[in-house]
Amino acid sequence: MTLILSNEEVERLLEVRDCIDVLEDAYREQAAGRAISQLRMDTEVPIGQGNHVKEFEFKTMVGILPKRGIAALRCSATIQQWLREFGSLRTDYVRGPGGRLVGLVQLFSFETCEPLAIFPDSYLQKVRVAATSAIGAKYLARSDSRCMGLLGSGWQASAHVEALCAVRPLELIKVYSPNSAHRSEFAETMSKRTGISIVAVDSPAEVFDADIVIAATNAKEPVIYGKYLKRGTHFCSIGPYEVDGEAIEKADVVVMHSRERYRTHVAGEGQFGTLVHGNPYVPSEYDWEHHILSRLDVNEVPLLEDILTGRSRARTDESQISFFMNVQGLGLQFAAVGARVYELAMQTGVGKEIPTEWLTQTTNT
Amino acid sequence: MTLILSNEEVERLLEVRDCIDVLEDAYREQAAGRAISQLRMDTEVPIGQGNHVKEFEFKTMVGILPKRGIAALRCSATIQQWLREFGSLRTDYVRGPGGRLVGLVQLFSFETCEPLAIFPDSYLQKVRVAATSAIGAKYLARSDSRCMGLLGSGWQASAHVEALCAVRPLELIKVYSPNSAHRSEFAETMSKRTGISIVAVDSPAEVFDADIVIAATNAKEPVIYGKYLKRGTHFCSIGPYEVDGEAIEKADVVVMHSRERYRTHVAGEGQFGTLVHGNPYVPSEYDWEHHILSRLDVNEVPLLEDILTGRSRARTDESQISFFMNVQGLGLQFAAVGARVYELAMQTGVGKEIPTEWLTQTTNT
Repeated sequence: MTLILSNEEVERLLEVRDCIDVLEDAYREQAAGRAISQLRMDTEVPIGQGNHVKEFEFKTMVGILPKRGIAALRCSATIQQWLREFGSLRTDYVRGPGGRLVGLVQLFSFETCEPLAIFPDSYLQKVRVAATSAIGAKYLARSDSRCMGLLGSGWQASAHVEALCAVRPLELIKVYSPNSAHRSEFAETMSKRTGISIVAVDSPAEVFDADIVIAATNAKEPVIYGKYLKRGTHFCSIGPYEVDGEAIEKADVVVMHSRERYRTHVAGEGQFGTLVHGNPYVPSEYDWEHHILSRLDVNEVPLLEDILTGRSRARTDESQISFFMNVQGLGLQFAAVGARVYELAMQTGVGKEIPTEWLTQTTNT
Repeated sequence: MTLILSNEEVERLLEVRDCIDVLEDAYREQAAGRAISQLRMDTEVPIGQGNHVKEFEFKTMVGILPKRGIAALRCSATIQQWLREFGSLRTDYVRGPGGRLVGLVQLFSFETCEPLAIFPDSYLQKVRVAATSAIGAKYLARSDSRCMGLLGSGWQASAHVEALCAVRPLELIKVYSPNSAHRSEFAETMSKRTGISIVAVDSPAEVFDADIVIAATNAKEPVIYGKYLKRGTHFCSIGPYEVDGEAIEKADVVVMHSRERYRTHVAGEGQFGTLVHGNPYVPSEYDWEHHILSRLDVNEVPLLEDILTGRSRARTDESQISFFMNVQGLGLQFAAVGARVYELAMQTGVGKEIPTEWLTQTTNT
């Protein structure tokens, strides 16, 4: 039987700490050459023209983790639009019937190839990003870190609160986002949920008086400014646009999640359309090419797996500024965390089933 | 509801002629910049070592065809081994429980992103390749072509008989494959099915005394030899290894299906493993780089869509030799033909259904 889980079931099954553990192990497998990801590929068709352009986007990521017996596909079909709200440029999804969105994790057996499970990607997507930021902080932030500054009060930000609490004994979190009502509500809700002191602050500058600064936004413009960074801070971004040039230059230790940039095929002239790196809709001054790549030799920057395995050094003293660029996800993350979700679902009998024969065939693929 | 079809249901729904029609239309859309494919990506983990190496492979292709309202994902999970049988090097699938194999077409709405249908890829995969070869012959072969030579007597070969009969009034097909029992059985079966004369021949040279020569094998070595090609012939291959150098050089008109080569991520050192073009297990002398690309300037070779739309010229006289290299599939094919399968299934009420809500979510992807 092939298991079908809802996003809510995945959320009930998966603990953030568990997610951190399986991801750490997966990065070690990857460092040893025993796991692999397909470069994320985005395929897009612009809808409309000029300032009202939307884009239909289909995205694929693949990861294979033999140790857990899993190959994972993560795919999503979305329609996005670009908005300027509260002064920030950001993307928003156009929702389908019932307000629903389409992103799926599909797990296949490494031994038999059979489709083992299908489930929406939302919770796993959120937690794998936050858990990876937490692994970065675990190896790079000062061990006595007690205070975190958080930029963003949305979906990714909430997951980062839980994940970072799992790796450092945080006592205070200061949160800023452009929408004051939203950041206050976030502070209140997350304080209650975690039992630690979370306060909304009225200016972005205030979050930088912290040991760890995390940008967990969907901003397409910088929110981490080098001018505010103090010595000893560890900072982390989940998008390539969140960090300004001065911040990159001030970091003594920089660690990347991946060196590859995803590729986008955009409909237009020619068979594979316009093949671009990254996002064709983002102003180029914030894109990697002009912003990050011009300041870093990415082939020299260590990866998270290099830090985990001791191939590269993390911070060497308490005054250094460290930066984990948690950008460009890996299919491997979906294999590692997906395998754990599947294991937990099988142990507890959660989910619906359809016959595996519905999704297989006797003749060749 | 999301429709689930079996491979047998797809086969009953889809006519080869219909497949040719929707593909032709899709190539015109692509030529106009209104459709797009994601480059095929293969992700592999070798299993075992030396002569007994197998490979676990996960493959993704994506195509978006707004005119039909469809984005299609085709993915497959397979374990392959390399065999030398009857003197030929070929690949074979290791089958899962019940002798089953895993390749899926998944259709998503271009308007709402909703998952519309999921079905095994086998029949569609076979027919889209054969229908594309037939479109090549329709535009490139002599209009008075009556005799076809066929190399291969397997799965792809049978589809090519039906497809080529749809575009030329064939009266005689000569078939050769290394297994004499298999080629005789094929000739008998396919004669009965199509009502035309299909004869098995005892040497590969005999198939070349024909107007159209098609290689429809999974051979990883040449089966079309330039020394046998006579003036006026149209020939076609479905793999990059099936044609020898002399054949490429003898062709007056060469048309490709795609200029891009798929990329393969193979587990090993590094985050994305070894990133290679094409197939890392094939002897390099038969790979594009050393074999085809050294003889053709692929940026100058017209594509099938260029011939369809009149951008490039097909044959200009009856004595020319034409070659359609039907290599490197496109996600677009799965969008075009998949859309037709879905339309036919909805019209006729074929298939099973699961609630679309099982595959969607209310929170972000």
